[in-house]
Amino acid sequence: MLEKAPQKTLTDLLDRFGKALAAGDIDTAVSLFQEDCYWRDLVTFTWNIKTMEGPDQVRQMLEEQLAATQPEKWALAEGEDVSEADGIIDGWITFETNVARGYGHIRLKDGRIWTLLTTMSELKGHEEPQGFARPLGAKHGSGKNRKTWKEEREEEASELGFSRQPYCVIVGGGQGGIALGARLRQLGVSTIIIERNERAGDSWRKRYKSLCLHDPVWYDHLPYIDFPKNWPVFAPKDKIGDWLEMYTKVMELNYWSSTECKSASYDEKTKEWTVVVERDGKEIVLKPKQLVLATGMSGKANMPKIKGMDIFKGDQQHSSKHPGPEKYVGKKVVVVGSNNSAHDICAALWEAGADVTMLQRSSTHIVKSDSLMEIGLGSLYSEQAVEAGMTTKKADLIFASLPYRIMHEFQIPVYNAIRERDADFYKRLEKAGFMLDWGDDESGLFMKYLRRGSGYYIDVGASELVANGSIKLKSGVDVKELTENSVILTDGTELPADLVVYATGYGSMNGWAADLISREVADKVGKVWGLGSSTTKDPGPWEGEQRNMWKPTQQEALWFHGGNLHQSRHYSQYLSLQLKARQEGIATPVYGLQKVHHLS
Amino acid sequence: MLEKAPQKTLTDLLDRFGKALAAGDIDTAVSLFQEDCYWRDLVTFTWNIKTMEGPDQVRQMLEEQLAATQPEKWALAEGEDVSEADGIIDGWITFETNVARGYGHIRLKDGRIWTLLTTMSELKGHEEPQGFARPLGAKHGSGKNRKTWKEEREEEASELGFSRQPYCVIVGGGQGGIALGARLRQLGVSTIIIERNERAGDSWRKRYKSLCLHDPVWYDHLPYIDFPKNWPVFAPKDKIGDWLEMYTKVMELNYWSSTECKSASYDEKTKEWTVVVERDGKEIVLKPKQLVLATGMSGKANMPKIKGMDIFKGDQQHSSKHPGPEKYVGKKVVVVGSNNSAHDICAALWEAGADVTMLQRSSTHIVKSDSLMEIGLGSLYSEQAVEAGMTTKKADLIFASLPYRIMHEFQIPVYNAIRERDADFYKRLEKAGFMLDWGDDESGLFMKYLRRGSGYYIDVGASELVANGSIKLKSGVDVKELTENSVILTDGTELPADLVVYATGYGSMNGWAADLISREVADKVGKVWGLGSSTTKDPGPWEGEQRNMWKPTQQEALWFHGGNLHQSRHYSQYLSLQLKARQEGIATPVYGLQKVHHLS
Repeated sequence: MLEKAPQKTLTDLLDRFGKALAAGDIDTAVSLFQEDCYWRDLVTFTWNIKTMEGPDQVRQMLEEQLAATQPEKWALAEGEDVSEADGIIDGWITFETNVARGYGHIRLKDGRIWTLLTTMSELKGHEEPQGFARPLGAKHGSGKNRKTWKEEREEEASELGFSRQPYCVIVGGGQGGIALGARLRQLGVSTIIIERNERAGDSWRKRYKSLCLHDPVWYDHLPYIDFPKNWPVFAPKDKIGDWLEMYTKVMELNYWSSTECKSASYDEKTKEWTVVVERDGKEIVLKPKQLVLATGMSGKANMPKIKGMDIFKGDQQHSSKHPGPEKYVGKKVVVVGSNNSAHDICAALWEAGADVTMLQRSSTHIVKSDSLMEIGLGSLYSEQAVEAGMTTKKADLIFASLPYRIMHEFQIPVYNAIRERDADFYKRLEKAGFMLDWGDDESGLFMKYLRRGSGYYIDVGASELVANGSIKLKSGVDVKELTENSVILTDGTELPADLVVYATGYGSMNGWAADLISREVADKVGKVWGLGSSTTKDPGPWEGEQRNMWKPTQQEALWFHGGNLHQSRHYSQYLSLQLKARQEGIATPVYGLQKVHHLS
Repeated sequence: MLEKAPQKTLTDLLDRFGKALAAGDIDTAVSLFQEDCYWRDLVTFTWNIKTMEGPDQVRQMLEEQLAATQPEKWALAEGEDVSEADGIIDGWITFETNVARGYGHIRLKDGRIWTLLTTMSELKGHEEPQGFARPLGAKHGSGKNRKTWKEEREEEASELGFSRQPYCVIVGGGQGGIALGARLRQLGVSTIIIERNERAGDSWRKRYKSLCLHDPVWYDHLPYIDFPKNWPVFAPKDKIGDWLEMYTKVMELNYWSSTECKSASYDEKTKEWTVVVERDGKEIVLKPKQLVLATGMSGKANMPKIKGMDIFKGDQQHSSKHPGPEKYVGKKVVVVGSNNSAHDICAALWEAGADVTMLQRSSTHIVKSDSLMEIGLGSLYSEQAVEAGMTTKKADLIFASLPYRIMHEFQIPVYNAIRERDADFYKRLEKAGFMLDWGDDESGLFMKYLRRGSGYYIDVGASELVANGSIKLKSGVDVKELTENSVILTDGTELPADLVVYATGYGSMNGWAADLISREVADKVGKVWGLGSSTTKDPGPWEGEQRNMWKPTQQEALWFHGGNLHQSRHYSQYLSLQLKARQEGIATPVYGLQKVHHLS
């Protein structure tokens, strides 16, 4: 009996919680939460991605949303265990709202809710056709002039965007656009994906040649089709490119490659976008109801403006345009920047025999890839985790269940452990003059990613080249100006150069909205990404979720989608359900739409 | 304690069996088998695919093979239950030989072995790089002029078959060649696949347009990458074509499309094949050590010789060349034959508005697709089975564990049940004049497939058109001759015709050997396929396994691979291990190499 206790505690609590919600008894419902509670909702209660922090915010959300949500059938998820450790009981839950089925995770402390995650699995009556409901494929029986699968696909391709308008247009056919497109296809939301490259996967193929994924395979699965068990831990860029290309094809996406989005404008009266694209040199006007920018958080390049750039006679490239080292064997190269791309490009240039100097303008956070894998991701995303029964879905939800407000507290010890483990490595880097940091609050890489999307390098070998001087380092300086054939630094040093690579990062994604739509709409939407943590490059106030990502923005019918492969996989589920609900005319009352505090 | 009994019984038996084998005590080992026992070995003891029937055959095999095999570590497979039902105890087992790790299935009757399946999982020291051993992908560290994944792939493509010879050449790039090629790639056996079509998957795409798989998705997975859960039950041919194409690419196969194999000859002294191929119009000579014909059991068309074929003015096609119905709207068509292709083609022609007559020359076995799925395959290959925890691997092995000698006994009740369930349907077909059969011993479709690979139609709708007269039927007759514009039947009937389709099946696969190598080698190898059941089109003597498939033949270094998707998946494992062992110079003493009794 004793070992059943956590399960009983949780069942009882769910029962009381469910009854209180059903009765509209918000006082009782709120009383079941801890003082330091967090309720993260992905689309079920809030039609938003939102974390309620503390009982007051929970109360406020329920007061606004409960009546429209009508949650019920709260229960422990079938086949899942309830566990207890360090005084925390945690378990998996299922529930329903008036329009959807939900899945979630809950942690109890002292018998009350500490963290609650509620996510939408599917809309009732709009379930994806899979498993028992998968399509038959063959058309059994008989009938005159039936169309084959191929004819139907060809007909769709010839009609969609011409005689028939898609409900949704996704600008950007990288992993984000593709993952979202796959889910929308399964939900029956007609969609066209616009991609300027010739082939799906080119956004990877066209980057510098030594590039491999920095995240390991277990973290990177797309929806529906997992990478096979022989897939490399860190897939080379061309291999990922090929996978995305095949995925796009077998998932039957309407993928317009060699197509550029020229402009988009929204008619607030007709609730319709006018999206002008150029496809194979021909202008086509699309009229979708929803527009998703999946142009990538690494999409719009930050190019610095430096005196003398116009007179420099060598090559100058943003890192995203760097073609690889072949042309620069024996040449002198200055790489401005010291994050991921800068390191990878420096290493590839050195390997090919170029004379490379890295210019580190400010401190950088470095973590060795294997340490990050083992200590940072291992419990959720690793072969060990798979062997222990961890699924991608569960890992994603556990990840999602940790409140952003306190996530750094869990991260700090992880990076302390890494710092200790790799102490010699860091010592050598510092000895070479490299300026290290661990984030404003020592919380390391993942918080930097969430807060600012920059400021680090996951070391796969380049740091050793920096430490041993193979890659020359100038740190604590910036570029003052360029001459015809050199880079002059703020400390007066002159570096002869045949090539300058600006590994100077990327702007906020609403820069794409400014380009495609208007400055006005970009400003209305405001900065994309960041949590509002008041740390470097992530100004407050506290938002508690990634700004503007995968959820409604201040511009009706405009959405931002993207992030790494993990985020593209996981959050595409919630964005696709938000779009499907709107297509079906299901009420989607948004709670707590984010305010705009920063224009970019 | 009681429920532990079967497990203890099985453990004890395995223990005694293992000890006897380790001690070379064949008497004791044989005494553990039932009188009516079957030991099916896939490559572990016999380096062959072989069923030993009865204790004498078990003894004979052990006497020849035991010393060279040195089996040990017999144990219950980890994590698997032992079950008992109807007096039969069954369970999963693991074991090792001196060179390999094995997995198997065992059934005990009265405490002794009734059926034993032993299969090879992997060769020690040559395990596939997957899971914990998957490749890293990114090359961590640094080094001058390292090649990227893409450069290595390009280098391999430019060298293999030119400056460097593949160990293995597979002729035929359909599902069989592709599945085998994928496994060989994982095992590090350099391989070129020769395919005459332009694109992988074309062998499906180019068939008649209404074609869909007749086997359901759960039965059809390829190795390594399962179809996703939204994949249709019966995939349309073009969709399967696309899947095979992407699979070929992401599995990194050296797939020479638009390439035709012109000839092959084996040098018994150098143990090397000379394979002449024409690739994009250029002749290339390959020198592999092993040659696999994966040209398909539905590869080489049987074209009848009929008086008047030369003067007939309309179109004449073998079913494999039929382009689809578009050209024949409003035309008169005679389809000779009444198996799968005949039915599908007749239905598609009728749907398009042709006037179609089916010519049934002999009786045909008809099963409705849904009945076959539910009653025939449901327990192993279905969504229900997946939900109940059945994996593809397990299903394949359970399937493989049923001895061919008695398989019909399990099949007869299945088809009796189907006959009863669909009695009305069969009554209507017979009323329309259709000649039905259930196989020589009433054992139905699957035995027909294994014995002769023909003689049936899996009904997905065409039978209704036959029953209601939409497809006209002439049965119990054959073609006597053709005139300029008609088909004259043996009963004197004259059928005006614009098109005659010969759905007259395919020859034995050694016909391909005759074409590519020589008549002499084709005769040396003999008939491919069939069990030797002494039923129609499967002449005896009893062989007990598919003749010449996936195992050594009388021609050294010549192999046949193919069958449906299930067989291509499952048996490619054992063929790939046989090839790998030979490449590595591991001793592969073949036991019981089949004798040749039939030339074709």
